[in-house]
Amino acid sequence: SSKLKDNVIKHVKNVQKIGKDDPRRIIHSLKVGFALTLVSMLYYVRPLYNSFGVTSMWAILTVVVVFEFSVGGTLSKSINRGFATLVAGSLGVGAVHFARFFGHKGEPIVLGILLFLLAAAATFSRFFPKIKQRYDYGALIFILTFSMVAISGYRTDEILVMAYQRLSTILIGGTICIIVSIFVCPVWAGEDLHKMIANNINKLANYLEGFEGEYFPLPKKINSCAPEYKTILTSKSTEDTLANLARWEPGHGRFGLRHPWKQYLEIAGLVRQCAFRFEILNGYVLSDLKAPQDFISKIQEPCSVMSIEAENLRVALKSYSPETEKDLLEIIPGVTMASILIEIVNCVEKISGAVKE
Amino acid sequence: SSKLKDNVIKHVKNVQKIGKDDPRRIIHSLKVGFALTLVSMLYYVRPLYNSFGVTSMWAILTVVVVFEFSVGGTLSKSINRGFATLVAGSLGVGAVHFARFFGHKGEPIVLGILLFLLAAAATFSRFFPKIKQRYDYGALIFILTFSMVAISGYRTDEILVMAYQRLSTILIGGTICIIVSIFVCPVWAGEDLHKMIANNINKLANYLEGFEGEYFPLPKKINSCAPEYKTILTSKSTEDTLANLARWEPGHGRFGLRHPWKQYLEIAGLVRQCAFRFEILNGYVLSDLKAPQDFISKIQEPCSVMSIEAENLRVALKSYSPETEKDLLEIIPGVTMASILIEIVNCVEKISGAVKE
Repeated sequence: SSKLKDNVIKHVKNVQKIGKDDPRRIIHSLKVGFALTLVSMLYYVRPLYNSFGVTSMWAILTVVVVFEFSVGGTLSKSINRGFATLVAGSLGVGAVHFARFFGHKGEPIVLGILLFLLAAAATFSRFFPKIKQRYDYGALIFILTFSMVAISGYRTDEILVMAYQRLSTILIGGTICIIVSIFVCPVWAGEDLHKMIANNINKLANYLEGFEGEYFPLPKKINSCAPEYKTILTSKSTEDTLANLARWEPGHGRFGLRHPWKQYLEIAGLVRQCAFRFEILNGYVLSDLKAPQDFISKIQEPCSVMSIEAENLRVALKSYSPETEKDLLEIIPGVTMASILIEIVNCVEKISGAVKE
Repeated sequence: SSKLKDNVIKHVKNVQKIGKDDPRRIIHSLKVGFALTLVSMLYYVRPLYNSFGVTSMWAILTVVVVFEFSVGGTLSKSINRGFATLVAGSLGVGAVHFARFFGHKGEPIVLGILLFLLAAAATFSRFFPKIKQRYDYGALIFILTFSMVAISGYRTDEILVMAYQRLSTILIGGTICIIVSIFVCPVWAGEDLHKMIANNINKLANYLEGFEGEYFPLPKKINSCAPEYKTILTSKSTEDTLANLARWEPGHGRFGLRHPWKQYLEIAGLVRQCAFRFEILNGYVLSDLKAPQDFISKIQEPCSVMSIEAENLRVALKSYSPETEKDLLEIIPGVTMASILIEIVNCVEKISGAVKE
């Protein structure tokens, strides 16, 4: 039973850690609960229920599916969903009216063929990189709404009423999501992207700074654990997603409506290039093959100067604001250059080590 | 109007390219159309409609949302959806019965509180890395089903019938998806992962092979364009997703049920490490700083030998089957070693170039 207790304690600590790592996660969970309770009023309050009836189910479905962590995610999904429902709904109503020309026997066949063709075409369109990036969810909802309207149109005569109710409940659900997402402790994807990249540059500076202590170990210094820059190596997909969502967001704080998010990706690419070099460099630092002592002491001086330069770089970054973005782009090649220089120094050491053997 | 024509031609060519790049995309689109037409029978055929009625809408919704490109994706979503609906449905029915103890006035309040708590908890659980990786969709459907049953349970007395109908139509939709996905030209995520990694190793070999021609340009050789290995640098997220989906797939062809997909990720990691080195190396190849001619001719011999070795490596890879997987793991360090060796050779050149200046 003490084993069970240990397990429970471990799990509780794990939960606490996830919450502590980013407290916005807890707030987001509460926001989802709040939005759902809000939309459930459509059922619980009699006058609202009388006007919407069972279709208010669609409002609940919309809230659950559309509410995302960031404002950009919520906006992108709501707009995609609303717009796709509108277009597919109109097309579906048109298809049903068109199919009725073919008599009661021909109607399901014509509708089936139309459904097959449109579903296949819309599914194929989801493979286009541009559509996949921004309108993937819209294409999905397009297929969904069109099939529903076209198929149920065969059995009910009230498709116009149905389509209208569906669209209006989706609009209610989407609006609740957008309002809660923007006005209750908003999480901006753009700000996250900004912080992530600034943080990545910081990690590079950290490594450069720590480099002297790592390679020329002084008795008072303790070696650090796994270097921070490693996460930069594979962060491309996260950055792309954030930049994508940031484009959906309205202006907020320091960021205007058409903030140049693409430039952030350029900076991120340069930072990653630099991290690649660190990765190689780190291999040499960790290897047992060290250069002769007299050679090491010869290069310690320039390396030390470089570490101080890294500290200066960090100070420059701290005062970094969107206005100095261009400067940042100019700084990066310097950092890269510096890292290549170290790389060269290390290569020379490696070679002299090999020659000695 | 000739400009419009050009535009149309460009778009048509673009569509053709997407289809040609991977013809399975066209087949997938047709499969989705086929599955949807199949499930629409529930509406068009009278005996089927009589037994399911309007709830067969859920079967259509399931097919649209659950059908993914790979078998693993479809299985993962179907199983998540089916299981989450079952659990959340039972909990929802229980919550409605529990809330009825509190009288007609207390019922919506109790249900609202329960809804808020469960939705917040389930949303928070989606932040756990393990749940996010494999059960994210299940958690979403859990919230969805629970809210629907709990909320509509307040207005209707037939929640058991409703829950049963919803579950059975979801099972029908899921089964149709799984059958079409497995038996009509299946796309296995596992096979894709296997091919992708084999292909990545091939790209490394290509670069090593082409290296001689690149750095020691002979008049008859034409320089190749952007090196293929670049895509490897950022392919980690794709590989992770594929390995994740592959775990859901039953045994097929050469791959058993519990194929060691984790080992594939290890190999992929080593391949990426090697690509990092190529990236650095490539910087030197492209740079204008070249070593003196006599030095270049000195190192041409070993580089040429290395290129031939790369060709041998590729031959070894062609005969590569799952049985020799271990061998592959043993080969990789060799490739990496070789690339580091070249790197060293290049560093020496760079240094001698710098000294000369």
